[in-house]
Amino acid sequence: MRIVSFSSGGRMSWGAVVNGGIVDLAARLSAFPTVRALLEADALDKAHAALEGATPDLALDAVTLLPPVTDPEKILCIGVNYANRNAEYKDGAEEKSYPSMFVRFPNSFVGHGTPIERPPVSDQLDYEGEIVLVIGRAGRRIPADRALSHVAGATLANEGTIRDWTRHAKFNVTQGKNFDRTGAIGPWMVTSDAIDLAAPLHLTTTVNGELRQDDTTANMMYSFARLIEYITTFATLKPGDMILTGTPTGAGARFDPPRWLTPGDVVAVAVPEIGTLSNSVIDEPR
Amino acid sequence: MRIVSFSSGGRMSWGAVVNGGIVDLAARLSAFPTVRALLEADALDKAHAALEGATPDLALDAVTLLPPVTDPEKILCIGVNYANRNAEYKDGAEEKSYPSMFVRFPNSFVGHGTPIERPPVSDQLDYEGEIVLVIGRAGRRIPADRALSHVAGATLANEGTIRDWTRHAKFNVTQGKNFDRTGAIGPWMVTSDAIDLAAPLHLTTTVNGELRQDDTTANMMYSFARLIEYITTFATLKPGDMILTGTPTGAGARFDPPRWLTPGDVVAVAVPEIGTLSNSVIDEPR
Repeated sequence: MRIVSFSSGGRMSWGAVVNGGIVDLAARLSAFPTVRALLEADALDKAHAALEGATPDLALDAVTLLPPVTDPEKILCIGVNYANRNAEYKDGAEEKSYPSMFVRFPNSFVGHGTPIERPPVSDQLDYEGEIVLVIGRAGRRIPADRALSHVAGATLANEGTIRDWTRHAKFNVTQGKNFDRTGAIGPWMVTSDAIDLAAPLHLTTTVNGELRQDDTTANMMYSFARLIEYITTFATLKPGDMILTGTPTGAGARFDPPRWLTPGDVVAVAVPEIGTLSNSVIDEPR
Repeated sequence: MRIVSFSSGGRMSWGAVVNGGIVDLAARLSAFPTVRALLEADALDKAHAALEGATPDLALDAVTLLPPVTDPEKILCIGVNYANRNAEYKDGAEEKSYPSMFVRFPNSFVGHGTPIERPPVSDQLDYEGEIVLVIGRAGRRIPADRALSHVAGATLANEGTIRDWTRHAKFNVTQGKNFDRTGAIGPWMVTSDAIDLAAPLHLTTTVNGELRQDDTTANMMYSFARLIEYITTFATLKPGDMILTGTPTGAGARFDPPRWLTPGDVVAVAVPEIGTLSNSVIDEPR
């Protein structure tokens, strides 16, 4: 099942993608006004049941897609997680055995097909293609061997970054990661029954069709399961929480000279088992 | 007006503190089930009106107080903001002109009177007394001279920290700041009409009655208004968002040897115009 959140005619809703259209499941399951509410009720089976024999209510291109979960309690991002990317940071530091983590707010993301925005204060808008885990079942101290059973599904992100603002202060990248509408999540969440999250996934990012990032989750230093185990050492994961699992080598900052995104560029993040997240770039409207 | 969120007999509610008791305003204003909903509707005046002639429904000590906003979209924390604290970090780096920022999740905080918890993986639980701004009106690119008009009120935090986990990874303090129930926010939100947030506030933190932190917001490098201006350079602030505005010198990590919190300790954070936030320390129940 491919779950989408969307807005249409000023109304927010969610549904499933079937035959190139959307079955509006919020309209059929009024107890669950949002995907987060559905996940909190552990009711993906009700969504499956409501899809039986249903035909699309809306064309996919007739709506504005939103991130699959629009109101997560938390969006946790992993900083450096692909083995060959760590080597990009030639800063003399020994390899750390724990993953770096930061947080993004929902407003920093748009959905598939909506332009991401370059703010007026910087020309260093950069892309980072990533795989996103969506939590289905809450937990604390989840062992790795049970971790994937807590995942409702997977989606994609362009973890768009204002590179110079990640070092605006002495510590922490918060600012450069949280400009409104600089990133994207989507196009949909593929539910865990329809994807094998324990098998390697092949992630690519292109800019205007040119391949920039190309790696497999087999190269991750922290697997999906180990990330969940580590995070829940300290925090409780809850339904609807999203984990952005890190980006491979090849972001624009790593070219010499750097290749920042400019208006008119199109960034596409793809994993065959999930789909393609595509967004153009505009200057932020003022 | 002093606004509290609380649980009582398994029910969550919110209200105002009057004569040592709580007037249950959620029961009187059913359109606003939470403080966040009240703020999103810009309806503090309705809370004021509902208080007219009301007498307390509950004794203050008969409920479990929660952070005044239980479900904020974001909790932004300022890293180093009191002038003499920056000098504590004698790391050879030049003074940065922008404040360091990180994020905490709601689950990392309890309310006034509930013990904070030392997790089994570390003995470095530390206190940080702070003043918290609660956003009332949404905004982006808010100029400093209008910033305080976006603040619904102020409360206090013990921004409890697992010190060794703030450097668990190469970048970012996320982990050490987000252990479940290691911090506290409360006891209530004093609404902006009842406190002058442009005047200096005197903040103290004691551990078992011993003064550890003692400073005034006049020493802040970034005033409340400038923090809001800076944050909204990149992000939209929304009703219910909380900003933890930094802690003065004197956290336990700065003693030689460090003075970590241990079970049985009591941490009290106080500002006369707001009140006192007091929490004991326990080992995390397993």
